[in-house]
Amino acid sequence: MWENIFQAVDDLFDEMVQIRRHLHQYPELSFQEEKTAQFIADYYEKLGIPYQTKIGGYGVIAKLNGGKPGKTVALRADFDALPIQEENDVTYKSKVPGVMHACGHDGHTAALLGLAKAVLPFQEQLPGTIVFIHQPAEEYAPGGAKPMIEAGVLEDVDAVFGTHLWTDTPLGVLHTSKGNFMAGADRFEIKIKGKGGHGAKPHQTKDAIVITSQLVTQLQQILSRRIDPLKTGVITVGTFEAGQAFNIIADSAKLVGTVRTFDTDVQNEIIDQMKKIVESVCIPYEANHDFNYFKGYPPVVNHPKEAEMILKDGKKVPGIDNTEEIEPSMTGEDFAYYLLEKPGAFYFTGAQKERDNYPHHHPKFDFDERALPLDAKTLLQAFRSYQEEH
Amino acid sequence: MWENIFQAVDDLFDEMVQIRRHLHQYPELSFQEEKTAQFIADYYEKLGIPYQTKIGGYGVIAKLNGGKPGKTVALRADFDALPIQEENDVTYKSKVPGVMHACGHDGHTAALLGLAKAVLPFQEQLPGTIVFIHQPAEEYAPGGAKPMIEAGVLEDVDAVFGTHLWTDTPLGVLHTSKGNFMAGADRFEIKIKGKGGHGAKPHQTKDAIVITSQLVTQLQQILSRRIDPLKTGVITVGTFEAGQAFNIIADSAKLVGTVRTFDTDVQNEIIDQMKKIVESVCIPYEANHDFNYFKGYPPVVNHPKEAEMILKDGKKVPGIDNTEEIEPSMTGEDFAYYLLEKPGAFYFTGAQKERDNYPHHHPKFDFDERALPLDAKTLLQAFRSYQEEH
Amino acid sequence: MWENIFQAVDDLFDEMVQIRRHLHQYPELSFQEEKTAQFIADYYEKLGIPYQTKIGGYGVIAKLNGGKPGKTVALRADFDALPIQEENDVTYKSKVPGVMHACGHDGHTAALLGLAKAVLPFQEQLPGTIVFIHQPAEEYAPGGAKPMIEAGVLEDVDAVFGTHLWTDTPLGVLHTSKGNFMAGADRFEIKIKGKGGHGAKPHQTKDAIVITSQLVTQLQQILSRRIDPLKTGVITVGTFEAGQAFNIIADSAKLVGTVRTFDTDVQNEIIDQMKKIVESVCIPYEANHDFNYFKGYPPVVNHPKEAEMILKDGKKVPGIDNTEEIEPSMTGEDFAYYLLEKPGAFYFTGAQKERDNYPHHHPKFDFDERALPLDAKTLLQAFRSYQEEH
Amino acid sequence: MWENIFQAVDDLFDEMVQIRRHLHQYPELSFQEEKTAQFIADYYEKLGIPYQTKIGGYGVIAKLNGGKPGKTVALRADFDALPIQEENDVTYKSKVPGVMHACGHDGHTAALLGLAKAVLPFQEQLPGTIVFIHQPAEEYAPGGAKPMIEAGVLEDVDAVFGTHLWTDTPLGVLHTSKGNFMAGADRFEIKIKGKGGHGAKPHQTKDAIVITSQLVTQLQQILSRRIDPLKTGVITVGTFEAGQAFNIIADSAKLVGTVRTFDTDVQNEIIDQMKKIVESVCIPYEANHDFNYFKGYPPVVNHPKEAEMILKDGKKVPGIDNTEEIEPSMTGEDFAYYLLEKPGAFYFTGAQKERDNYPHHHPKFDFDERALPLDAKTLLQAFRSYQEEH
Repeated sequence: MWENIFQAVDDLFDEMVQIRRHLHQYPELSFQEEKTAQFIADYYEKLGIPYQTKIGGYGVIAKLNGGKPGKTVALRADFDALPIQEENDVTYKSKVPGVMHACGHDGHTAALLGLAKAVLPFQEQLPGTIVFIHQPAEEYAPGGAKPMIEAGVLEDVDAVFGTHLWTDTPLGVLHTSKGNFMAGADRFEIKIKGKGGHGAKPHQTKDAIVITSQLVTQLQQILSRRIDPLKTGVITVGTFEAGQAFNIIADSAKLVGTVRTFDTDVQNEIIDQMKKIVESVCIPYEANHDFNYFKGYPPVVNHPKEAEMILKDGKKVPGIDNTEEIEPSMTGEDFAYYLLEKPGAFYFTGAQKERDNYPHHHPKFDFDERALPLDAKTLLQAFRSYQEEH
Repeated sequence: MWENIFQAVDDLFDEMVQIRRHLHQYPELSFQEEKTAQFIADYYEKLGIPYQTKIGGYGVIAKLNGGKPGKTVALRADFDALPIQEENDVTYKSKVPGVMHACGHDGHTAALLGLAKAVLPFQEQLPGTIVFIHQPAEEYAPGGAKPMIEAGVLEDVDAVFGTHLWTDTPLGVLHTSKGNFMAGADRFEIKIKGKGGHGAKPHQTKDAIVITSQLVTQLQQILSRRIDPLKTGVITVGTFEAGQAFNIIADSAKLVGTVRTFDTDVQNEIIDQMKKIVESVCIPYEANHDFNYFKGYPPVVNHPKEAEMILKDGKKVPGIDNTEEIEPSMTGEDFAYYLLEKPGAFYFTGAQKERDNYPHHHPKFDFDERALPLDAKTLLQAFRSYQEEH
Repeated sequence: MWENIFQAVDDLFDEMVQIRRHLHQYPELSFQEEKTAQFIADYYEKLGIPYQTKIGGYGVIAKLNGGKPGKTVALRADFDALPIQEENDVTYKSKVPGVMHACGHDGHTAALLGLAKAVLPFQEQLPGTIVFIHQPAEEYAPGGAKPMIEAGVLEDVDAVFGTHLWTDTPLGVLHTSKGNFMAGADRFEIKIKGKGGHGAKPHQTKDAIVITSQLVTQLQQILSRRIDPLKTGVITVGTFEAGQAFNIIADSAKLVGTVRTFDTDVQNEIIDQMKKIVESVCIPYEANHDFNYFKGYPPVVNHPKEAEMILKDGKKVPGIDNTEEIEPSMTGEDFAYYLLEKPGAFYFTGAQKERDNYPHHHPKFDFDERALPLDAKTLLQAFRSYQEEH
Repeated sequence: MWENIFQAVDDLFDEMVQIRRHLHQYPELSFQEEKTAQFIADYYEKLGIPYQTKIGGYGVIAKLNGGKPGKTVALRADFDALPIQEENDVTYKSKVPGVMHACGHDGHTAALLGLAKAVLPFQEQLPGTIVFIHQPAEEYAPGGAKPMIEAGVLEDVDAVFGTHLWTDTPLGVLHTSKGNFMAGADRFEIKIKGKGGHGAKPHQTKDAIVITSQLVTQLQQILSRRIDPLKTGVITVGTFEAGQAFNIIADSAKLVGTVRTFDTDVQNEIIDQMKKIVESVCIPYEANHDFNYFKGYPPVVNHPKEAEMILKDGKKVPGIDNTEEIEPSMTGEDFAYYLLEKPGAFYFTGAQKERDNYPHHHPKFDFDERALPLDAKTLLQAFRSYQEEH
């Protein structure tokens, strides 16, 4: 049976590409994925697989009960896009200005829908139950996973698996690790409130741009001097906005950014240092500040046994040549929340392009679409291995 | 006669206030003052004073030939507004979001129109000719003065005077100086072009926000270390814009700002240092940059004799209690160009409010409207003194 | 026999303490350890063990040929001190102003000498040969190990072991790891050459202190933005010297510091970035610079089999309660060179004080002297295990 | 008579050069000028002019009572040197390592001694009294002037004059101004107390070099953003000292520097800002600091009438071609204290070299010795003018 389903997935390649390209043209930002959710629901409607919508936001789940006894295993795909203006010159280019599927979630959705369609004819022979989790808002903390879990999507679930199409991983390869796999990802907003005024009279003002530039420069000292060099952290200021005219001193400036860590101690030390630095740069100017720190996703920590299963059995999937345990990645994922609740693992499905390969979140990001059936088949294999081991 | 005109101006107080408040509600940004120009033209049309429009842009001039022989003296008022969101809670608050007469040009226009109306009945007795120059685009270099001069507004003109309603100067006082009066004002734009990417992978990027914050910090060294402490300069970064999302490293950042000097050597040294600093901060990252420096208005240098006339005769104007020579101001004015062509002087007419007085270019800027007739009468006095001395 | 030697070592506890305290009072800086070398040579002279001096500098080696066949194993102790003013209030406080055994090399020497004395009576029963390596100049690259190796001390040697008395490790514990154990340690010197002058005329100078402070601040960006957050590196500026008077602008400034890495790519990226930053800070001032980077010790990479031996058999030593594999340490050691030539391992012998425990290189550093016989006995055990396994 | 004295001064040219060169070879630092004071005393002893030593330190005064009635006028020369290593290759090069007459005080002393000798033969004809003030410790606040004044040197004095040989002023020219002439000069010392430790473990330390580099960088913002651009100030860090070894993180760092202002408000604002910046840079590291600010000399403010006298009558001195009023200088002088007590003026006597002219306080500073008799003669002229005007 399993080989037949693998074949069925491969036969759906064109449809998965079509779905993916459709979604790619109509990307929606996190927490605003109304139409994408509708698209997914319509697909299950057409298949005749029972589904539920508006789970913890725009979340959609579908359930396929196999004809044989077995475990309930959830497979998850996310479906939100990013605030990036696409720079690819492709027929399926984003039609929404400033919004783009620059991370491959369009592909995750296409693969999981394709898998549902491929498995359906084999329902009677299937052991256990597949829960298809279509999750919105992965890109923006607090994310879509937590509310879906709170809405009960993991009740009765025995294990959970997910994958990310990954352009740093070659096509035909799976990457994962048996513990720390992806970093915790936090978001922060800092507002420096100085005092505006005439551009030629700095002494009557508190120049928010100078104060905030100072702040950005000083943040670099946290990682170089305050964190154990053997530990890992990232502090990135993603946006800096200040001022309205060339000849007016800005009265305030706003920074928004992210912090990545694998370790609560490092996370807390970074927060503490950021607080102190924000405070300290304001002192000479008697400026004010808001500092808001939103603890985001915890690190993705794979369960060793389930990760081992991916590494061992992944190779059995037609088209997968190799599986490798890799160093953890600094990127974050709210798949972390599922793994805090249930056994399971998250892994990267290689989707590297042969040429013009760009990093995730880049305006020219794209992936090798031949990875779509590999995404679907390796999720199926995870389901299969879990059934066989329990 | 002069005393009668002074009286006529005072009698027009209500109308001048009304004009000013109308303009205040419909401010227009530099180079876009189409409706304001039309308003001015309509006013002269109604008075029956010959005028010309579209002089070097939206410029308007009107000429009143007196019945007696004499000199031709130009009086200038500017009429553009600023990209500031008004925060005053007044009945005449700006109705244009993000645009505001935060510098008093609405008042300059109202005063000069009022003066025209007040003088008109005395045309036959008047010696010489008054040229009323209504100039657009003072706030944004290259400004409106230069094209108006190039269009010939100073031809046949013997001298030129102008004033700025000034909230740092008490009501009833005139301030000017006999040489350097207002600084040269330049504008610059700097774009740092790094390389964007995932917020968790800084080593694959060239973080434009970190580079540019470094740049802003380093610009501070120019005045503290590279310019003779006995000389004067200001470098202000007015806007800093970079990035589009908290978890994406910004690929570029843009600064826009102003430089003020009284002295070509200092100006050149600042430009040279800025160039070198922009270049140098890019080096460790192999980042690229655009550096555009627009030399703006030269310093306003009053002609000593004409400035002396303002200081001496200003006190004869009813309502003016005192005139004082002051230190030069760091602010710039394209009135500078008129003084490079013709004798004349620029001065501040005190317009300080008794309470809640805010600096020019502040979202709560306003002035004491009792200064409107003083503006008009002191310009008339300048005309009168010039006729009497020649 | 081995148990008897362990007992003999323990019986020499008082003498080892005495030797250690003597050396502690007369510390000598790297490459200047003439008297310490003489002390060691005298000790072997008295024992009657054949030795050689002036090996690759002030190096001393002694050889004890056992009466039974076996392998030749080298045991190494270093004996130089540091440029630190001791702040301990102890009877054996350093008598040399500004020089201190703040790293425990006095103890290493005392332990190895004690071991030689303890083993001597058992010479006939001993398998193989012990080479006692007393090495100078560990603290200052290029170090004393390399010239001793070049002088041939490892010829005919089958394996080499060494230990560091370590105050981060509890008494009775051994720490090591089976691969990367201690970081590579480089040294750098940067000289910024500006232009001096009167403190009140900055514009006539190129202020080396401002340029160099800028440089130090900017170096912090290398680790925060230019190195993969999952990799490890440290850049420390240890000294900053500039200027001679409060009212004279400094014409030059000098930085000396260290870089630590485990990885040639990271090392090269750091060097490249430092070069570019040094270059770039000079540009706005047209200042000059010297940048000298001395690649120091490579990382200490233990041979897995020999490290495993330490972890397994270390526990057999009377007084050793536990052995643990630990994370690598950022500190450097020129023991690295021995391990590039021969199999072997380096490990930490716990020497933590019960109270007032200070880090290595601190002016109040001291260690628990009960670790001295443990240092000697674990080296003997390494020798024994190696003989037994081959 | 005056012309004869002028001639007598010129005749002493060789002796003045000889004295100057002798002093140049044996420079003494501020407050340590024991031998120089003795040299001066010996000279008056030989001349037979009554003198007193140890006035407020190493101060020396001599009095010459003229035979005619008149005013008592003090003429002052200073005699301390600087902590600079001379780099001139001249026969009279400093023989004291690290100490140098790099400001011309050797010349001031030679000129004033020469003047005493030249005037002596004309004592009977001389109106009033000359007080020769030889003052130590001008270079280092609190300076030598204040204690000499407190010791009574200005009692019975009607006016006081002094000059500085000045290499920015051409030979044959006098420069002075009628009010603000030289800036107030303060000294500060800042100590940042972090926490030292191993160079590879920054997170266990508080890196004093990084904190203090940050501090130096941030000090630059005071002048660029916090002080009215139309006002004048200088903040110079003259020395930066930290650390003792390349691989040890420095536990403390020390800055020493100077602040120059003409205005108490600016001075106070700078002190306040410095305090806040020192405080603020310590916050993220929880480091400690000492901030000591020593208000130094007030600005040298010439009395207008006496300065006018210098400008008008200076030209009468043989060898003086021109006198000019100049912009104030940022350099400080404790001559300020004399002018707070008595009428008088300070001026620059041109001493520019024709080639290889270096600024004051430079290791290659030297002056044109032909200025020595001009220094003496213009001081005599000041005495003469003052007698004639009173």
